[in-house]
Amino acid sequence: MRTLSKELKEHVGKVVTVQGWLHKKRLLGGLTFINLRDRGGLVQIVLKDKDEVEKLRGLQIGTVLQVEAMVKDESRAPGGTELHDAKLTVLVPVTEEPAIEIDKPLSHDPEHLDTLFDNRVVGLRNLQEQAIFKVQAEIVEALRQHFRSNGFTDIRTPKLLAAATEGGAEVFKIDYFGKQEATLAQSPQFYKQMMVGVFERVYEIAPVYRAEPSATTRHMSEYISVDGEMGFITLDDLQVFLSGLMNAVVDHVWQTSEPELKLWQAVKPVLPQKIPALTMAEINEKYTKATGTDTTKEKDLTPAEEKWICEWAKDNLGSEAVFVSQWPRQGAKFYHKFYDDNQEVAERIDLLFRGVEITTGSLREHRYDRLLKQLQGMTGNDPNDPGLKPFLSAMKAGMPPHGGFGMGLERLTQKFLGLKNVKEASLFPRDINRLAP
Amino acid sequence: MRTLSKELKEHVGKVVTVQGWLHKKRLLGGLTFINLRDRGGLVQIVLKDKDEVEKLRGLQIGTVLQVEAMVKDESRAPGGTELHDAKLTVLVPVTEEPAIEIDKPLSHDPEHLDTLFDNRVVGLRNLQEQAIFKVQAEIVEALRQHFRSNGFTDIRTPKLLAAATEGGAEVFKIDYFGKQEATLAQSPQFYKQMMVGVFERVYEIAPVYRAEPSATTRHMSEYISVDGEMGFITLDDLQVFLSGLMNAVVDHVWQTSEPELKLWQAVKPVLPQKIPALTMAEINEKYTKATGTDTTKEKDLTPAEEKWICEWAKDNLGSEAVFVSQWPRQGAKFYHKFYDDNQEVAERIDLLFRGVEITTGSLREHRYDRLLKQLQGMTGNDPNDPGLKPFLSAMKAGMPPHGGFGMGLERLTQKFLGLKNVKEASLFPRDINRLAP
Repeated sequence: MRTLSKELKEHVGKVVTVQGWLHKKRLLGGLTFINLRDRGGLVQIVLKDKDEVEKLRGLQIGTVLQVEAMVKDESRAPGGTELHDAKLTVLVPVTEEPAIEIDKPLSHDPEHLDTLFDNRVVGLRNLQEQAIFKVQAEIVEALRQHFRSNGFTDIRTPKLLAAATEGGAEVFKIDYFGKQEATLAQSPQFYKQMMVGVFERVYEIAPVYRAEPSATTRHMSEYISVDGEMGFITLDDLQVFLSGLMNAVVDHVWQTSEPELKLWQAVKPVLPQKIPALTMAEINEKYTKATGTDTTKEKDLTPAEEKWICEWAKDNLGSEAVFVSQWPRQGAKFYHKFYDDNQEVAERIDLLFRGVEITTGSLREHRYDRLLKQLQGMTGNDPNDPGLKPFLSAMKAGMPPHGGFGMGLERLTQKFLGLKNVKEASLFPRDINRLAP
Repeated sequence: MRTLSKELKEHVGKVVTVQGWLHKKRLLGGLTFINLRDRGGLVQIVLKDKDEVEKLRGLQIGTVLQVEAMVKDESRAPGGTELHDAKLTVLVPVTEEPAIEIDKPLSHDPEHLDTLFDNRVVGLRNLQEQAIFKVQAEIVEALRQHFRSNGFTDIRTPKLLAAATEGGAEVFKIDYFGKQEATLAQSPQFYKQMMVGVFERVYEIAPVYRAEPSATTRHMSEYISVDGEMGFITLDDLQVFLSGLMNAVVDHVWQTSEPELKLWQAVKPVLPQKIPALTMAEINEKYTKATGTDTTKEKDLTPAEEKWICEWAKDNLGSEAVFVSQWPRQGAKFYHKFYDDNQEVAERIDLLFRGVEITTGSLREHRYDRLLKQLQGMTGNDPNDPGLKPFLSAMKAGMPPHGGFGMGLERLTQKFLGLKNVKEASLFPRDINRLAP
């Protein structure tokens, strides 16, 4: 019967069997100490018996072991216990030295990222690296719980499409049985909107693809998009929902993942119940006034401005996140809804968090006639395009006022943990220069 | 303040506001009855006032309405209530007749499937169609809960790969920035195995891709694969885990989804706590004896045999599912583990359920030297292939005995509901002939 490292505290004074990987080995005052890693964490084992120490001769970190030993209290050891009188069984010997040391933090410096990712398979055995993905799993769990308790249906939409979702050059193309060209979905945008007509509230957490032609710290070829879409709402409803979602995720993650967060010295984000919103013009004005750099003529926020306004909001509004509202028509998508009394401004709210945009959200134009006009006026695309026709026919069949948002899972993970590059929050990142491991 | 249809029972005797889609309209004894659909289901509304009836003139099913009315008990109406003294507001008028009628069951006959899928966007508004995907969402929820409570980490592995996972012709190819060719993942096989070295127990529920060159009732180009992989286990542990998983999913779905299951007259599967296993030879023998068709020389089960043994197991073992064990080497993958005392037989268990294979599971060869030999002997592939090298290096870095399984989500949904074609359980199915909507 196997005992996990995290269960040892319940077995003090008893002999147990643990199984796991040799994680660290050191000689101290004539004794050999080893750390064994299993899915619960680490356990420290003291080896006195020479025959036992001998079993490890020539074996490297990663060797798979079974250990039968007595559990003792030891406040200085991981988990507060230590194993004594150990009898080792080597289950799987490893004789080659690992390409990367895993018992101390791996470098995430920009110049070492290639090393990090080239050795990903073994490097993830480092506890700090693992922690990123344990936190990410809890983020996803929290998102799902919140969606579910708010009446959203979990859907799965196709990633193989007949045409690009939103046009543009950044689309991967596939040979589809030599019969036609398919594309990889850049977002589930049209599908989630269509599904509002069916389920009213839907969400999807799934991969999307962007043929991003340059390697940046903010983009990947493949990432996980968290998409939500809801019917019968106003822009304020969306702001309220997203505020609640962010708070629910933060609370869940900081409740469930204390040890993992600690490894990254992650600080719990300060968020009010309703995250404040500023118009783009207000941000431009404040930024211009504070820095002397005039951005009031811009139609978008610069990265420096995004960073600045987040710091300002933290200091002045008690919030590490801030919505940007009142987006100018320029840069809007054809499916965005514009204010009925001001067609030059989109009913859009993007969420900035800790210096970057993590979510883009908006109301969608739900009235077929207006949508058709916007499509033709803003894109010039053919409404009979196979990538657009089903979407338009859904809009024609009766769609309520609706809106939604998309959020990059890796970017959210990155911002919670204070990682510098979004790729650090992907198990196996993909960009123009990387397609393996 | 909006009230959902499913909440009306709590508001009997009060005036409420509901919002939704016009789902059905009929004249009965001088009165007009309409059904309104929202995310909670249907509500029946009685219109007496001529002015109110007049508002619907020329409007079609799908019109988005807001209705203010008095809630009355009415046992014959959906949900046990009915709305009276209704005042209608047309939120979004629909004037074009829908391409497909949604207030009665849609035909799933093979000759009507193209009509079903061509009109999917509107057809899903039919309650019976929706039910498939509400049940599917609950299946996924149950899977996640069971994985989570058994210590599995939820992971996300890349679908863009440098090389085909398991080789073969059925792989989609992508132009990757004009620099190289990428492929779409046929399964997360290597990645989930590598992650056993990190998290011990991992699962992923995500799309995978097979360039299946013919349209069948059993395959799609894109489907959702439920993948689990666990370390430090035996084949019996895998059988126990999968038995528990199947039971947990059945129990959860039949607890949460009664109304949806009823629409498909779905019958709760009979499963013992531990699903029985039969060797392939035993099945061949029983089938040959019962039918006179000799399959004892075969190295696989025929579809007819899969069907027959499921019926036999239901009648004789009290189980609608049965594991097939003792698979011959022929047909095995290079990463399968073979019995140490019989290298001709793989430590594999496939799960048959209601006549078809829904899961393929096995132990994996975790010893690097043997794995390398199997790779070279069984495939002739180059161990330095970029699709194989990281996998092999993970195996070299210390991997415990491990095993896992893959399960098609749509196929499981299909079998729960008694659908004839797996595509009926996909929101937007993809096959050689279909890439839209």
